[in-house]
Amino acid sequence: MVWLDYFGVGVFAVTGALAAGRKRMDLFGVLLLATVTAVGGGTTRDLLLGVQPVFWVSEPAYLLVIMGAALLTVATARHLTFLLERPLVYFDAFGLALFSVLGAARADDLGAPWLVSALMGVLTGVFGGILRDVISDKFPLILRSELYATCAVLGAGTYLLLVRFEVPGPWPVVAGMVAALALRLAALRWRLQLPVFSLDRNR
Amino acid sequence: MVWLDYFGVGVFAVTGALAAGRKRMDLFGVLLLATVTAVGGGTTRDLLLGVQPVFWVSEPAYLLVIMGAALLTVATARHLTFLLERPLVYFDAFGLALFSVLGAARADDLGAPWLVSALMGVLTGVFGGILRDVISDKFPLILRSELYATCAVLGAGTYLLLVRFEVPGPWPVVAGMVAALALRLAALRWRLQLPVFSLDRNR
Amino acid sequence: MVWLDYFGVGVFAVTGALAAGRKRMDLFGVLLLATVTAVGGGTTRDLLLGVQPVFWVSEPAYLLVIMGAALLTVATARHLTFLLERPLVYFDAFGLALFSVLGAARADDLGAPWLVSALMGVLTGVFGGILRDVISDKFPLILRSELYATCAVLGAGTYLLLVRFEVPGPWPVVAGMVAALALRLAALRWRLQLPVFSLDRNR
Repeated sequence: MVWLDYFGVGVFAVTGALAAGRKRMDLFGVLLLATVTAVGGGTTRDLLLGVQPVFWVSEPAYLLVIMGAALLTVATARHLTFLLERPLVYFDAFGLALFSVLGAARADDLGAPWLVSALMGVLTGVFGGILRDVISDKFPLILRSELYATCAVLGAGTYLLLVRFEVPGPWPVVAGMVAALALRLAALRWRLQLPVFSLDRNR
Repeated sequence: MVWLDYFGVGVFAVTGALAAGRKRMDLFGVLLLATVTAVGGGTTRDLLLGVQPVFWVSEPAYLLVIMGAALLTVATARHLTFLLERPLVYFDAFGLALFSVLGAARADDLGAPWLVSALMGVLTGVFGGILRDVISDKFPLILRSELYATCAVLGAGTYLLLVRFEVPGPWPVVAGMVAALALRLAALRWRLQLPVFSLDRNR
Repeated sequence: MVWLDYFGVGVFAVTGALAAGRKRMDLFGVLLLATVTAVGGGTTRDLLLGVQPVFWVSEPAYLLVIMGAALLTVATARHLTFLLERPLVYFDAFGLALFSVLGAARADDLGAPWLVSALMGVLTGVFGGILRDVISDKFPLILRSELYATCAVLGAGTYLLLVRFEVPGPWPVVAGMVAALALRLAALRWRLQLPVFSLDRNR
């Protein structure tokens, strides 16, 4: 389980490092943006729930994974971007599925109400990416694109529902992740979108 | 009192949902931005003061109000924007007045120094709107427009002053809100502005 | 030591107020942005480490220093910008050096792991400036410019190393600050830069 968590953190760190590269940041800018992207969602969740200190403060292995992933990205990206870009979307989908389920689980374990736990799952999954885009001075596209937040809602909701019905063992986690991942892959494949709420500015 | 609070949260959620519509977000983007706008100020205050967990985690009714307000906005906005836009400014002024007073009261009850309580009132009133604009990749206009933050300062200050002089019962809250609301309405009516601090960039 | 801290806070408040002036904010917008810039880094550090409440809540003198520095900036900047801009860069370098060492020290005193303490030092030094730029709807240039974050890394690292080797008294603080400051001044003087990680967007 812990290994999956590190893998998710590493994947998000790579997306942060790539975003830094698009904005021509220097090395420590890259590390900082990779860190914010990778742990931003879980950190926000821990702060809101009052978990102290936040999860990576007592577990520096997270930072090591992030640094490794970011440096590897810098070292290889110029040559391998075209190789990376395709699988990265799928790895990112995996991280999204994992974090939304783990985030909901963390809140649920602390006794948060159902609705709050679901929101915490979504935040854990998507907030790192939002912070990455806000710091890069970009509009956070994940609030608009193929069912991204919707997948986090589905993953967190599935997990919470199965836990409520006392489904045993790892099944709630597995089912939540599969649901979120399947929806995200389907959305990418067939370019599914939620209806967009569009207000004409000059009406 | 609690009902007023829910009303303020709902109003801010509507402004968040409308901002999401202007940026063409999908449904969950709308919900997320509405949530950040509605509880962002109070959440920041609680985090800074060390109130844990933050207020809406143990009270999911806030999230329900936000979801209801956001969905209602999406359902009706396309047809009713022209109806909404006018009153919304006034509702928003009400929310601003309420939150700045309640935020200052919360900090004061926890024994924060006078100046810190005043700042907490201002933060509670304006920070949700700032976060809304930052996430929407817009410049936060409320740092420039008609006395917006000034009203929060006046509301929080009036409340704290009356409490200091031990004015009893609901009067400090009422007076703070009336002061903030009156100033905001006057500012909107006569387009009042604080002097703007403008540095020519290419001097 | 405390006086140095106030000095650093005041300097960062001036940079925040100047940024507000470039965006034509009104008076309370200036105060808010000055505050966020001056205490944003330390506040983030305290939140992540679980120090509660954050440092300036129980010590309103910080807010007084910020208000004084911001008001002074507004009063004099129109005439004195050309006088201020040059020394400001050096004062800012001093604030950066001070905050990165103090931030690392704070985390280290609380028993955080080495790597986490170093990151906390960097965050304390640079995050206020990042928040300033994000709220001003600008790209945070300090993630790209002359070794800015690198200086924070050097300062925090030097401090932590000397403390590890039990160098006594004020020497770790002094050495960390001198290292960070010297590197920053050299970087400004000779326009040093870390290699930039640049991804061509349309490759």
